[in-house]
Amino acid sequence: MVNLKLILRALGFLLLVEGLAMLAAMVVAIIYKGSDIHAFVISSLICISLGLLLIVLTRKASTNIGKREGFTIVTLVWVVFSFFGSIPYILSGSIPNFTNAFFETISGFTTTGSSILDNIEALPKGILFWRSTTQWLGGMGIIVLSLAILPIFGIGGMQLYTAEVPGPVPDKISPKIQQTAKTLWGIYLLFTLTESLLLWIGGMSFFDAICHSFTTMATGGFSTKQASIAFWDSPFIHYVIIVFMVLAGTNFSLSYCALTGKLDRVLKDEEFRYYLLFILIFVILIFTGLLITENMGTEKAFRDSLFQVVSIITTTGYVTADYLLWYPCLTILIFALFFFGGSAGSTGGGIKIMRIVVLLKNSYYELKRMVHPNAVIPVRFNKHTVDTKIVTNVLAFFIIYFMIFILSTVLFSIIEPDLQSSMGAVATCLGNIGPGLGNVGPTETFMHIHPVGKWFLSFLMLLGRLELFTVLVLFSRSFWKG
Amino acid sequence: MVNLKLILRALGFLLLVEGLAMLAAMVVAIIYKGSDIHAFVISSLICISLGLLLIVLTRKASTNIGKREGFTIVTLVWVVFSFFGSIPYILSGSIPNFTNAFFETISGFTTTGSSILDNIEALPKGILFWRSTTQWLGGMGIIVLSLAILPIFGIGGMQLYTAEVPGPVPDKISPKIQQTAKTLWGIYLLFTLTESLLLWIGGMSFFDAICHSFTTMATGGFSTKQASIAFWDSPFIHYVIIVFMVLAGTNFSLSYCALTGKLDRVLKDEEFRYYLLFILIFVILIFTGLLITENMGTEKAFRDSLFQVVSIITTTGYVTADYLLWYPCLTILIFALFFFGGSAGSTGGGIKIMRIVVLLKNSYYELKRMVHPNAVIPVRFNKHTVDTKIVTNVLAFFIIYFMIFILSTVLFSIIEPDLQSSMGAVATCLGNIGPGLGNVGPTETFMHIHPVGKWFLSFLMLLGRLELFTVLVLFSRSFWKG
Repeated sequence: MVNLKLILRALGFLLLVEGLAMLAAMVVAIIYKGSDIHAFVISSLICISLGLLLIVLTRKASTNIGKREGFTIVTLVWVVFSFFGSIPYILSGSIPNFTNAFFETISGFTTTGSSILDNIEALPKGILFWRSTTQWLGGMGIIVLSLAILPIFGIGGMQLYTAEVPGPVPDKISPKIQQTAKTLWGIYLLFTLTESLLLWIGGMSFFDAICHSFTTMATGGFSTKQASIAFWDSPFIHYVIIVFMVLAGTNFSLSYCALTGKLDRVLKDEEFRYYLLFILIFVILIFTGLLITENMGTEKAFRDSLFQVVSIITTTGYVTADYLLWYPCLTILIFALFFFGGSAGSTGGGIKIMRIVVLLKNSYYELKRMVHPNAVIPVRFNKHTVDTKIVTNVLAFFIIYFMIFILSTVLFSIIEPDLQSSMGAVATCLGNIGPGLGNVGPTETFMHIHPVGKWFLSFLMLLGRLELFTVLVLFSRSFWKG
Repeated sequence: MVNLKLILRALGFLLLVEGLAMLAAMVVAIIYKGSDIHAFVISSLICISLGLLLIVLTRKASTNIGKREGFTIVTLVWVVFSFFGSIPYILSGSIPNFTNAFFETISGFTTTGSSILDNIEALPKGILFWRSTTQWLGGMGIIVLSLAILPIFGIGGMQLYTAEVPGPVPDKISPKIQQTAKTLWGIYLLFTLTESLLLWIGGMSFFDAICHSFTTMATGGFSTKQASIAFWDSPFIHYVIIVFMVLAGTNFSLSYCALTGKLDRVLKDEEFRYYLLFILIFVILIFTGLLITENMGTEKAFRDSLFQVVSIITTTGYVTADYLLWYPCLTILIFALFFFGGSAGSTGGGIKIMRIVVLLKNSYYELKRMVHPNAVIPVRFNKHTVDTKIVTNVLAFFIIYFMIFILSTVLFSIIEPDLQSSMGAVATCLGNIGPGLGNVGPTETFMHIHPVGKWFLSFLMLLGRLELFTVLVLFSRSFWKG
């Protein structure tokens, strides 16, 4: 039997959190005397009262949490949050249409950053703050999910990180997870505040600085400006954001190590080293390409390539240059980056560096295995032998990811009959990035997509954010049986 | 030490075969009193004399054949054949440029079918015959390679077929392989003759019937007409070619079973069943799509979808309709088929049905494994448990295939700055199909591609044809060491 009461209780607590976050947005709306105050009053009332009601009704729920409850809660949270989170958009009249409001909200909570808005500056400040907050909350959620919950359930090779959270599936959420979560959120908060301060010093308004720190640390990419970061023609602001995007795409456990003085552990971490290596390779290629093909200064070419590479690999999705206008080969390089993603245990989405490294190593070793068929050549990661089961799991993840990408592109092209736009929209939503290719490129929006397409892309965002398996398992019969 | 003498001796024998094949083309040239007689006289003389010379010089070579010799010979044969095979094109003036002639020849021997010719009907008959012969020989070569040689060396999961050729790596080419090869070539010849007869009855000239049978059975796709099979507006001819493309894409061991009365083994074969299933699914989708979006008769829509699906999945590459003019979603479906390929042990290229099935099964089981982490859930194929090593190998093959595809698309887009054309050209050459997308679509040629691009695509054809690993291993240091 599924512990339905516990699921509802968890949702109740989380709705309460969402309601409180809406209260914060209400305060912002009040400060700026916006037209959106009533929207937040009503929506926070709905969330808080419903949350309290659920908590009270389920106070006798047993605290036994198994796989079924875990997977269900994790998936439901994102859906329920997006459903209630879209209420302020609708009530304030900022996004009157429910499909559009839901798309914008789930794009927020999944830290994707794809937007249907085509006149962002016209929105009231409370709404802009709420929009950034959805991403910030989503980023918080994903840290706990990827560092504390997924490894326990053994999702997609995330067991490689069980060192932090050892032991078998626990019967209840252990105090250890709570402690880990608190520590990591502390770091998340610290980075957010530091970035806000730096951006403010760099010339952003205090409001914009906070909003952009929220969406940087979540690798979300929502901006308060239609032109995204390109709005600010300030190298300082660009470099600050680059640094914090890199941090947001790094495993938060590593940041913890660095902050507590264990810098050697950070520098020895294989995923971190490959992460920097991939950034370096792509920056060199694109920087060189820009110098050859575009008539621009060296620093600008370097900054543009670095910003776009970091923004895409970390799945943030901010832009300071329209990569669709680059020489096509460079655009295709950027598109290849759509299939990398941040580090495991970061707020970044996508396939993730750790998996890419395991894939690359296994492919290389497979050639060796062909030459020496009797030798046992295991994949090693961070000096440990990776269990064959985990390798198979990582390989399966990659293949399912690609199958979903191809199948979705075919399906999406029914309503969006352009291969490039279709591939771009699917890849960017599945990878939780933000901008795509063709008519959903960096200077375009998702407004013109058919409603059915918006729901489809919303589902892809969820699928990508929850590492595929979490969602897919819910559709499998054997999960619910016995 | 590598047995260099043996390698040269093997090449000598194979050059002799190529020279004799050129003599056959010379006979055709003489019959049609073409301007190309001298080209075949000279080129066959070169091949035969060089072949004999090599054989005589290496008559004392030891017959010890190991992995190194095997991989080297297999890779070299295709390169050497293409080099000498391009001589008739050059000498006859049909393709005066060496790069173009080499591209056309390797496209022939690898049974790809991509062409640089834009006025095929103007060529002398001897050259047209030679062009078809390169594919027919390539098809013959690939049957031995995939059924007799690759399983021994354990390439890309081909061990699944070692049932036919049991035992460890033999010291010399065993009489058993020779026997198997003879039997399979017998079937190949039988099918070729039967198809020729049927096409002749269907209204093709005797010459066209032979040439098209050659290129159908090789899943090559070279035609004697610029418009490919669309030249003949005859349902009978289309259906005959469909049937023989399906046969050419089927494991030749299975055809042997069918011909010797063991029809039940054929019907129980999992790869064969999935092969037909994939064809069925894609035909239903595209047929329905054509009925909805195009104004054409039911039979024509059915035939067009069936022909194109079978032509692409078997990697033949004939066309009776320009799929680029279809509703984009249908074109994308066809492009998805670029990543399937024929059965193992057929003349078809690409990823191969067997691998796709193992991938799909493993992905599905991985979900089950997530739910029951302690259960051992192996992949089963044809009622046998597939060794984890083989599963990992198949997964690695797929991933390397995709990495090569993505990397090559990026590289190729430097000289072909259009994403769609670039993806199409790379996918079609790597999969040994023929036509691509964009400016290398079914009604276009590869003539306009930059020479560097033509050499690059030639390399991809070879890589795809030899199941990646055969070629890649040659670049690995540990292969040549110790």
